Amino acid sequence: MRILIRNGTVVTATGASEADVLVDGERIAALAARDSGLADAWSPTADRVIDAAGRYVLPGGIDAHTHMEMPFGGTFSADTFETGTTAAAWGGTTTIIDFAVQAKGTSLLSTLDKWHAKADGNCAIDYGFHMIVSDVNDTTLKEMETCVDAGVNSFKMFMAYPGVFYATDGEILLAMQKAAATGGLVMMHAENGIAIDQLVAQALAAGRTDPVQHGLTRPPELEGEATSRAIALAKVTGSPLYIVHLSAAQALDAVTEARDAGQNVFAETCPQYLYLSIEDLARPDFEGAKYVASPPLRPREHQPSLWRGLRTNDLSVVSTDHCPFCFNEQKELGRGDFAKIPNGMPGVEHRMDLLHQGVVAGELSLARWVEVASTTPARMFGLYPRKGTIAPGSDADIVVYDPTARQTLSAATHHMNVDYSAYEGMEITGRVETVLSRGRVVVDAGAFHGGAGHGRFLERELCQYLS
Amino acid sequence: MRILIRNGTVVTATGASEADVLVDGERIAALAARDSGLADAWSPTADRVIDAAGRYVLPGGIDAHTHMEMPFGGTFSADTFETGTTAAAWGGTTTIIDFAVQAKGTSLLSTLDKWHAKADGNCAIDYGFHMIVSDVNDTTLKEMETCVDAGVNSFKMFMAYPGVFYATDGEILLAMQKAAATGGLVMMHAENGIAIDQLVAQALAAGRTDPVQHGLTRPPELEGEATSRAIALAKVTGSPLYIVHLSAAQALDAVTEARDAGQNVFAETCPQYLYLSIEDLARPDFEGAKYVASPPLRPREHQPSLWRGLRTNDLSVVSTDHCPFCFNEQKELGRGDFAKIPNGMPGVEHRMDLLHQGVVAGELSLARWVEVASTTPARMFGLYPRKGTIAPGSDADIVVYDPTARQTLSAATHHMNVDYSAYEGMEITGRVETVLSRGRVVVDAGAFHGGAGHGRFLERELCQYLS
Amino acid sequence: MRILIRNGTVVTATGASEADVLVDGERIAALAARDSGLADAWSPTADRVIDAAGRYVLPGGIDAHTHMEMPFGGTFSADTFETGTTAAAWGGTTTIIDFAVQAKGTSLLSTLDKWHAKADGNCAIDYGFHMIVSDVNDTTLKEMETCVDAGVNSFKMFMAYPGVFYATDGEILLAMQKAAATGGLVMMHAENGIAIDQLVAQALAAGRTDPVQHGLTRPPELEGEATSRAIALAKVTGSPLYIVHLSAAQALDAVTEARDAGQNVFAETCPQYLYLSIEDLARPDFEGAKYVASPPLRPREHQPSLWRGLRTNDLSVVSTDHCPFCFNEQKELGRGDFAKIPNGMPGVEHRMDLLHQGVVAGELSLARWVEVASTTPARMFGLYPRKGTIAPGSDADIVVYDPTARQTLSAATHHMNVDYSAYEGMEITGRVETVLSRGRVVVDAGAFHGGAGHGRFLERELCQYLS
Amino acid sequence: MRILIRNGTVVTATGASEADVLVDGERIAALAARDSGLADAWSPTADRVIDAAGRYVLPGGIDAHTHMEMPFGGTFSADTFETGTTAAAWGGTTTIIDFAVQAKGTSLLSTLDKWHAKADGNCAIDYGFHMIVSDVNDTTLKEMETCVDAGVNSFKMFMAYPGVFYATDGEILLAMQKAAATGGLVMMHAENGIAIDQLVAQALAAGRTDPVQHGLTRPPELEGEATSRAIALAKVTGSPLYIVHLSAAQALDAVTEARDAGQNVFAETCPQYLYLSIEDLARPDFEGAKYVASPPLRPREHQPSLWRGLRTNDLSVVSTDHCPFCFNEQKELGRGDFAKIPNGMPGVEHRMDLLHQGVVAGELSLARWVEVASTTPARMFGLYPRKGTIAPGSDADIVVYDPTARQTLSAATHHMNVDYSAYEGMEITGRVETVLSRGRVVVDAGAFHGGAGHGRFLERELCQYLS
Repeated sequence: MRILIRNGTVVTATGASEADVLVDGERIAALAARDSGLADAWSPTADRVIDAAGRYVLPGGIDAHTHMEMPFGGTFSADTFETGTTAAAWGGTTTIIDFAVQAKGTSLLSTLDKWHAKADGNCAIDYGFHMIVSDVNDTTLKEMETCVDAGVNSFKMFMAYPGVFYATDGEILLAMQKAAATGGLVMMHAENGIAIDQLVAQALAAGRTDPVQHGLTRPPELEGEATSRAIALAKVTGSPLYIVHLSAAQALDAVTEARDAGQNVFAETCPQYLYLSIEDLARPDFEGAKYVASPPLRPREHQPSLWRGLRTNDLSVVSTDHCPFCFNEQKELGRGDFAKIPNGMPGVEHRMDLLHQGVVAGELSLARWVEVASTTPARMFGLYPRKGTIAPGSDADIVVYDPTARQTLSAATHHMNVDYSAYEGMEITGRVETVLSRGRVVVDAGAFHGGAGHGRFLERELCQYLS
Repeated sequence: MRILIRNGTVVTATGASEADVLVDGERIAALAARDSGLADAWSPTADRVIDAAGRYVLPGGIDAHTHMEMPFGGTFSADTFETGTTAAAWGGTTTIIDFAVQAKGTSLLSTLDKWHAKADGNCAIDYGFHMIVSDVNDTTLKEMETCVDAGVNSFKMFMAYPGVFYATDGEILLAMQKAAATGGLVMMHAENGIAIDQLVAQALAAGRTDPVQHGLTRPPELEGEATSRAIALAKVTGSPLYIVHLSAAQALDAVTEARDAGQNVFAETCPQYLYLSIEDLARPDFEGAKYVASPPLRPREHQPSLWRGLRTNDLSVVSTDHCPFCFNEQKELGRGDFAKIPNGMPGVEHRMDLLHQGVVAGELSLARWVEVASTTPARMFGLYPRKGTIAPGSDADIVVYDPTARQTLSAATHHMNVDYSAYEGMEITGRVETVLSRGRVVVDAGAFHGGAGHGRFLERELCQYLS
Repeated sequence: MRILIRNGTVVTATGASEADVLVDGERIAALAARDSGLADAWSPTADRVIDAAGRYVLPGGIDAHTHMEMPFGGTFSADTFETGTTAAAWGGTTTIIDFAVQAKGTSLLSTLDKWHAKADGNCAIDYGFHMIVSDVNDTTLKEMETCVDAGVNSFKMFMAYPGVFYATDGEILLAMQKAAATGGLVMMHAENGIAIDQLVAQALAAGRTDPVQHGLTRPPELEGEATSRAIALAKVTGSPLYIVHLSAAQALDAVTEARDAGQNVFAETCPQYLYLSIEDLARPDFEGAKYVASPPLRPREHQPSLWRGLRTNDLSVVSTDHCPFCFNEQKELGRGDFAKIPNGMPGVEHRMDLLHQGVVAGELSLARWVEVASTTPARMFGLYPRKGTIAPGSDADIVVYDPTARQTLSAATHHMNVDYSAYEGMEITGRVETVLSRGRVVVDAGAFHGGAGHGRFLERELCQYLS
Repeated sequence: MRILIRNGTVVTATGASEADVLVDGERIAALAARDSGLADAWSPTADRVIDAAGRYVLPGGIDAHTHMEMPFGGTFSADTFETGTTAAAWGGTTTIIDFAVQAKGTSLLSTLDKWHAKADGNCAIDYGFHMIVSDVNDTTLKEMETCVDAGVNSFKMFMAYPGVFYATDGEILLAMQKAAATGGLVMMHAENGIAIDQLVAQALAAGRTDPVQHGLTRPPELEGEATSRAIALAKVTGSPLYIVHLSAAQALDAVTEARDAGQNVFAETCPQYLYLSIEDLARPDFEGAKYVASPPLRPREHQPSLWRGLRTNDLSVVSTDHCPFCFNEQKELGRGDFAKIPNGMPGVEHRMDLLHQGVVAGELSLARWVEVASTTPARMFGLYPRKGTIAPGSDADIVVYDPTARQTLSAATHHMNVDYSAYEGMEITGRVETVLSRGRVVVDAGAFHGGAGHGRFLERELCQYLS
């Protein structure tokens, strides 16, 4: 199967150029200058020619933070690997990195097996795994080495959720030492869960049970604190550190200071922190529950700091933390007790579009959009140049994007398996038109042509940013 | 003329990939995956096939700061546009941006004409101009607009050299307002020349006349101060700012703070600040004069900060400030009075090699080497994607680089028109093998095949980093 | 003459205590514990016994920044040494340090003679001088030494007012070197006057002539810049530095950073920056002219930073910069051209009361009020323990203050020789009841008992804070 | 009993003055100017006249951090309240604030009773208590209120020593909320004990058992981290915070940043961190054990930061953390296992002398010496003006200090009940000559005249620095 994409503007992390792209099988065979005559020569041999005039030709998006069918408090996040990766493809994301979740008392390797079993044969796009380490002991520390060898070299830990995923500073230190020794990367959910639990208990004891309390009991200072602490532990151990879903200006300050000092500290934020706020958590009639995730949505004044961080590269990546729970039956578990609301929001489908609004608004350049959404995640998580760019030899994960189309986000039209949209009614400029995943057209002209099982597991190299 | 470069590792600012490059005429026609079979198909039609196995295929270097045949205190820098650009090509640099120097009392446009006359027909590689504005008045402010339209949109000003190039803070403010209005970029030599002149006078009055006094009378605090001041003026006017030849940790701190705050502030450093120090200025027998440039070489402890700045992108570009004066007859003008030593050092030929030592030493990644030496200067000064990358449609400015070859730097072997090397005897890993400038092989197998007049003037777009 | 002050609460910079104070002649003879019986013993021998029950007994205020009958643009500030020091006494200030103003082309010593002639025999309270150095040359640098010996060891320089008081960075450097060598203290008016003059010219050229333009053409960034620059020059020379009338958060940040690093940098602010804002400058009908001073009144959001700075001691002193010009005939010179409005505001009478509002509002502790208004100025300018405390042997400069009295500030009732009050109608809690200057009751029960000529010149020791 | 101290230089926190001091009973009755004639009048009625010519007359030192007969790992610190307070008096310290130590499972009030029983009748000087809270629960939180009412309003918590004194961040948060509500002050031992315990275990497992390992397993970054965390928790709760025994530059940076922002954060350091270093911990033959305390002695390069912090007031207090264990039998418990070495060093006797060396060396002014050693502890812990100054009505805790005497520190001559001196052989300029405690001469001319039971418990007011 040969596909020729002509007349488009190829956008990479360094800028845009006018080039035609020849896909042969699963990979990009060549790029040719518009006026080189090569596309004319290739055209007759192509199985399909896509005219991308007036369109961007982008490397497929990489969402480095998703939770498909994740067990959480007796229920599961609502998207399966099939529905979730399908929705991702619809939105121009052609790779996800999901989290294998170690349960306390189990091994990392059995966890990995379990997650392979869940995903294998079910994904519409390529996928990798991070490993959530919730039980640090001699065995799991040893298993981290095996995980690295198996292409799962990023290990998420939690300073939040005591009794569930929470790791002590001592456990974090041990895991970081192992990461430093193996080239692995520690990813951190940085909120001081021990202190937060007291605030939550006090709120409930005082009868403050509404969803907005989820935000009020998790003050931004406690995200800043935990971020600083993780950075200090990384300093002591020589480990690189990646802060997930950074939401608070205080946390960004800590990351910025460490990066200025040359420490290997990185951070991602998520679209919900760029566009939504604690005001959404405060919506009446329990509707705020739709917006419960951790860290919580912040007061609106944190948003300009986050956009600035994206420009200064103190925030290097935008992921979604996609972890959908339906409003009915799932979010409703927390009526009368905000602490029982499943934590998580849907988003995997809208990341590319939402970030494009940043381009439209002048917050990000075109190149920076591609960089934070695709190129940097690829380099950060050892997938480059296979993923994250439009280059010969790279996987043909390509998005043809119409920058002027208009669309309205809605649960009525989205493809995620969840009964609400966090962006219901939001009007968007730009739209994904055609998506190739490893050379296969999976989305085109408003129809889905992909399928479960097309997506393959990605054994990842080490982080490519370590200095 | 078609040239096919096969089997090499193409390195861009985001990473390396295995690809073959087809050059057709002056531009890159296509890149093909190694295993696509396309190179085999192209090979018969190529006028030349370069086997780059084991070699890097790099975008040609861009030296954004050179001074060819620059008038200075009654003499001229020793390289003409011909000798200087030839030496640049030898070293893998295929574009320079030189400075047109407004003399007080003359117009910017006549200055530009004069510099066009100097360079036209004499350059071995492509070149652009920045404009040194030394006389701010209503006419020159108006002329800045015309310069921008003519592709000369970066304007260098001096906080040093009172009575020569020095601009008052008021003049800087006016020029910055104009830059903000036109999209131009103000480049700043940031040293407090007014205070420095007092220290110089005191040293001379006290009989301290050796070259090392050049360094001692220009303390790093006064570079830090001027950098902060330039940043404040840029803030007030809304102008972008590019600090040239940053040498001191104090100045880097000021740049870092501004960048953290999201201000459009950029900075370059130079190889001499990364590798040489005030100890060289203190060499006996007037040999220190070879190392006199401004800002001066700093104590060695500034170097780790500069390397860190290159990694954190607080230093975005490495240029040379190439401004050679022969030791005999030129540098000697300052025997007995360090203030009379012509300011400047040779370097245009060695930038790519010297930075490659940073890669060898683990200071910079391969991708970052290309970024600071080629891609970022291209984007910063409006040349991308014509220059600064290996992509279809881009100018075929290509360097085939042997990363394992060994060479020793020496005045005996370099091609710059100057009678000494600042790096005499330094052993280098890596060497430029073949250089293409707009599709023409200008250096190959130790021979020069280019010629004066091949290089063309580049009308530059605006800076591509402004947010 | 023996005066016994009984039953009051003596407040010093470290706290309050219940003690009785015996004044004998010009000095404090003793302090006695309330229950020691000593006051009973002293009482019969006292010429007067003041019952201070329910009152604070404070060391007299020291206003380290006043301009009496200062020549400015063809006119003079409206208070003479007599009227100004009388008003000061009314307000509980028993020492002023005024500025002798060197005119260009004249000597420091002749200037000092001139100012002695102005003040001698005319002051109602004790006074010292700072020297404004507006002409730096070998003679004046030498004269600085003589000034130090004569008890005038603080030298004010201006980065503002080009063509009038403005000193270049080179001149500042020379004066700072001299200060470092002699133990003198450089005081700095830190605004970038060179850049400001361009903004002023642009405003006038554009027909923006109202008083508020005075504020808009002097942006806080240019005070921050100049403050940073002065600090850098002080660092290079090893000189201590005292920033006068700090008004902008940016300047405070620079001071804070230098102080954190242990540099001998100090700063004062003034009541007008704590209580008034650019909104006052924007009052209609040219009334804004009443509020024209430099640096200008700032947007209100700078005020909390200044109060915080007073608490953190990054602002160590509160002075008034008292420099009154009548609205009629003087301020009116600038109708139609804000640049012609005489710069300065009245304030010497209200400093103690206005700062007491900070105590009432919880911004400052009682001890801190005394510290910033009296003790620290005394220590900063070499007057302690003669002035600035209530201690045996100290001059009997004592204020009996009623903390609960109420008063309304008004031009109708104030004693300064100026036809408006910047605080017209402001209601104040607390009031000066009795004032002793060197043992003489000069204010009591709403009547003035002092007189011109009582005040004596103070030869000051060196700054007592240098480390 | 009336004592007159004549001819001395009275030094307080704001400076020195020539005054005579009349003590009547337990308190200071009056201060008189030297030339007032009052001393002559008082002299005949005095029971004793001390001639302090050439001497400083200082407020007695206040050591706000001692541990007398403290239970620790099966043993007790070697000084009893009697021996410890006697040694303190010898060294010019007339007040200690010791720590009542709550054992897990016991109540605060019973702890307080226990400590009263230990101290009552045994102290040679006045004393107060802080409360160590090691068991946070509803009862103890409630008891904190009672403690505040009982004059014990400062509560020490530990982020170190898991399983012993360690409090979780949640417990700290609860205690800080209570402190914020009651006006109490949380004191923090800020080291990340959880992480440190892993490093200790790793060192022991690797056979690294020498005393120096105590320092190497407690890196300064983990003191900096804990300090930042405590500050963040204080921010969230609105509680004031006092960092005890700050030793690391990283911790000082965190305190400085918080203080710059106006937060109520304070810190003390100790003489051992100013004068000793990790090199002492590395002394051979287990002698390093003498220097084991927590936080550990740091590399020498931290010392200039601490001295600077004392000057900038980011360090407000110098206490000793006096907690002596004999080398024989006690320190020796840790031979072969550094973790078993009792933590603590002797020091209560030498604080005033050691800080005077800072005056001699120019690190501190005379006034600052008195401030950090006496006045600020008094104000910080609610004892001013009863203690911490020389003022009428204050307790007659007075030290007559000979600034020019010479002495050599040695276990052979010190009065602490411990078999070694951490400063053995150190030569000191200055010496305590006479000490009054509440009007009683307890040390004089090399003899001790005090006695157990003279010292009384001090009910303290709230911290006087809160804003």
